[in-house]
Amino acid sequence: MTMYKGSLSLLTDLYQLTMSYGYFKSGMKDTTAVFNLFYRKNPFKGNYAIACGLHSVIDFIKNFSFEEDDIEYLRSLKGNDQKLLFNEDFLTYLSELKFEGDIDAVEEGRVVFPHEPLLRIKAPVILCQLLETPLLNIINFQTLIATKANRVVNSAQGDPVLEFGLRRAQGIDGSLSASYGSVVGGIKSTSNVLAGKLYGMEVKGTHAHSWVMSYDTEDEAFETYAKAMPNNCIFLVDTYNTVNGVTKAIECGLRLREKGYEMMGIRLDSGDLADLSIKARKMLDEAGFPDARIVASNDLDENKIAELKSNGAKIDVWGIGTKLVTCHDQPALGGVYKLSAIKKNGAWDYKVKKSEELIKVSNPGIINIYRYSDSDSFKFDLLVNEEYGESGIYVDAENSQENIIENHLTKEQLLKPIFKNGALVYEKPSLEEIDNKRNNDLYKLPKELKNNHKASLGYKVNLEKKLHELKISLLSQKR
Amino acid sequence: MTMYKGSLSLLTDLYQLTMSYGYFKSGMKDTTAVFNLFYRKNPFKGNYAIACGLHSVIDFIKNFSFEEDDIEYLRSLKGNDQKLLFNEDFLTYLSELKFEGDIDAVEEGRVVFPHEPLLRIKAPVILCQLLETPLLNIINFQTLIATKANRVVNSAQGDPVLEFGLRRAQGIDGSLSASYGSVVGGIKSTSNVLAGKLYGMEVKGTHAHSWVMSYDTEDEAFETYAKAMPNNCIFLVDTYNTVNGVTKAIECGLRLREKGYEMMGIRLDSGDLADLSIKARKMLDEAGFPDARIVASNDLDENKIAELKSNGAKIDVWGIGTKLVTCHDQPALGGVYKLSAIKKNGAWDYKVKKSEELIKVSNPGIINIYRYSDSDSFKFDLLVNEEYGESGIYVDAENSQENIIENHLTKEQLLKPIFKNGALVYEKPSLEEIDNKRNNDLYKLPKELKNNHKASLGYKVNLEKKLHELKISLLSQKR
Repeated sequence: MTMYKGSLSLLTDLYQLTMSYGYFKSGMKDTTAVFNLFYRKNPFKGNYAIACGLHSVIDFIKNFSFEEDDIEYLRSLKGNDQKLLFNEDFLTYLSELKFEGDIDAVEEGRVVFPHEPLLRIKAPVILCQLLETPLLNIINFQTLIATKANRVVNSAQGDPVLEFGLRRAQGIDGSLSASYGSVVGGIKSTSNVLAGKLYGMEVKGTHAHSWVMSYDTEDEAFETYAKAMPNNCIFLVDTYNTVNGVTKAIECGLRLREKGYEMMGIRLDSGDLADLSIKARKMLDEAGFPDARIVASNDLDENKIAELKSNGAKIDVWGIGTKLVTCHDQPALGGVYKLSAIKKNGAWDYKVKKSEELIKVSNPGIINIYRYSDSDSFKFDLLVNEEYGESGIYVDAENSQENIIENHLTKEQLLKPIFKNGALVYEKPSLEEIDNKRNNDLYKLPKELKNNHKASLGYKVNLEKKLHELKISLLSQKR
Repeated sequence: MTMYKGSLSLLTDLYQLTMSYGYFKSGMKDTTAVFNLFYRKNPFKGNYAIACGLHSVIDFIKNFSFEEDDIEYLRSLKGNDQKLLFNEDFLTYLSELKFEGDIDAVEEGRVVFPHEPLLRIKAPVILCQLLETPLLNIINFQTLIATKANRVVNSAQGDPVLEFGLRRAQGIDGSLSASYGSVVGGIKSTSNVLAGKLYGMEVKGTHAHSWVMSYDTEDEAFETYAKAMPNNCIFLVDTYNTVNGVTKAIECGLRLREKGYEMMGIRLDSGDLADLSIKARKMLDEAGFPDARIVASNDLDENKIAELKSNGAKIDVWGIGTKLVTCHDQPALGGVYKLSAIKKNGAWDYKVKKSEELIKVSNPGIINIYRYSDSDSFKFDLLVNEEYGESGIYVDAENSQENIIENHLTKEQLLKPIFKNGALVYEKPSLEEIDNKRNNDLYKLPKELKNNHKASLGYKVNLEKKLHELKISLLSQKR
């Protein structure tokens, strides 16, 4: 049901509603809780992620409200004794529910690392639960795609990249999220016209194989196209035979030039792209088209781009579809949302999620993220319990040694206030501003972390000393 | 931009619009073309797919119309000379454009095979192009997910399966499409409350780790939950230690029973699910809870289910998330949309897409699919050019031998008329009817094709003799 335009407030797991009902009935509906949304492992075997999804989260929360037909539906649900699942008091409560509480989040486009809260919510526990699923849905996928896009841009080394995965994306909104995540990750152009309209991305496209096939000859197809759109000519040359296709494109380009137009280039969509691009470049250069660009597509991703570049491919523009928009090699980020504190009798009760797997142990507290940098580079990130403040001492994530934070380092708080007491206090930056934030971060990211193809030892996300002590003490408690 | 509620008519690749402009300007706007949407290879190394997406396609086409702000956006686009890409005549044409033409398609839930048109469109070439991208987007993903869901159901061998991937799905609509595709594939329950409301799926859920963590002890957590929702108790037992958790669930179940309620079961979400489920089953049985169900989750898919079953796991209900909703091992179907005929001077000009890869060669004609069966089983599918009709002779897909269709076989036409001259002529079947269609097909599908884990030689999709001759003749033509 891709065309659904109604309320999205039921877009949550049923257990969020049953737990909410449990809190409601046990008198905990106004209990404040803190949850952190974070991921545990960098995607794509990389060394960082690009945060994305906040703007959609803002829209979601602004519109969060159960409508009459939502309540009607909930009223119809039954338990195993065929009696109603929810009582009328609870349904009335839901029908009046709006977001209240605080949300702090990392801005779109920022470089982030495992275990850092991309979003922190402090709100009545019922709201925290009801919002868990949509927040994860939105941030998980958009962060994944922004990260993937950034890796592709990395591999392209400054060449333009074009996202054109709409036809293979996971649903209509999967495609729109993919286009948006791509632009946050650094890809400036898309084939998706609606994404162009909605996000102000540059839209690109010329013609497909079907255009060539619908004419009797390739010559006729190119010629007809050039006549109709002389100012947008990139000829797809591989419908029948690529080298012949390049010859025909050149002939058409020469005729265009006589009329005062310049052929923009050609596109290769099959075969050995390295070899064919080298041949095509030579042919274009010799025919007097040194500025005609060679666009390539066909199952590309950051790894294939790197391989083609190392094979000397003469490709100027990279069109990336399926493998980008579905994040083919890792189609889910696996971000989680964990309780880190709950207010009991006016005081914070801190929480960790224990696990036999160390990576699955969560951090307690009202966590802030501080990023410490010198003038050139990020040095480490520090997680701090806001209630404790900073002692100036941190525990190194790698060797558990205590260290003093050096004086010459500057710090920046990564979590920005988004909602305060239910009110939106954040102004969404423009795509240009997001671009700058991402580029500034990437500029200061230690160089070894930018290698797409080699996981480094990792950037350190250290714990402030008192937070570390809290975590150790909670882990030693029995439940 | 997950909350977009405006017109979706720009949800297409720019090249569809530039090609349309080309057809418009070269006087071909009313030329009728035929395109087929099909996939080339069964997903997940399986032997079939489950068709899905048609109902969304119907909604999309019914609503297809460029609105004022769509036209405004197109008016702003520029070519490489900074002059406008489209002229006013074309924009006026678009603003008045509605779907006209015919669509025939395979119904939701039907078993389908490579190279069979899941959808065939016969319409003005401009409409065919503009609709290509959204049709592929919708059918590609929904067919993929329905197929994946059916594989999971297959592995579960009659055990209930619950889809709960919302938090890891690719965007909001990715999640809704995933729930819908799941139900078309045979999964009856979801955690996604909105999917329950929209599609009438059964919604399921009880509580999460966060519920247990928000109380001082596991006992208190279970007890509070049981008090609030005595008729919906499946206790998640692995927050601290699974075996202890089962003990506490049993204690809580005994207290529930005193109050006249029955514990529904427990859920395992980590650790060795085979071993833990065997232990938990024994504990539950010995404590007098033989009917309490054991639900399992944690990165499951059809392969993991098969493995757990072969290890003797005592799991009654399977909760499937990430790997189902993202189709983790193959996140895109790779369906394509190819021109197969175009009307020139009143006669059909048939088209094949040539390729050096045999699998990428398309079929020409106005294709119908006939499924031949005996009383027990499907025998083969036959592609026929509707304009030629059937000769009674087919060319075997495997050995290219000519064969006569045996008299005792019954045939069914798989493509059903959906739109005729622009008007919807199809009534969407209910989910129950879709369920029946799928089950009937699976019943008659040759048994070896149902093996999830072994690709068979494949079901034969043969060509009718005259269609085969047409294809051979077109392939030998030079362009």
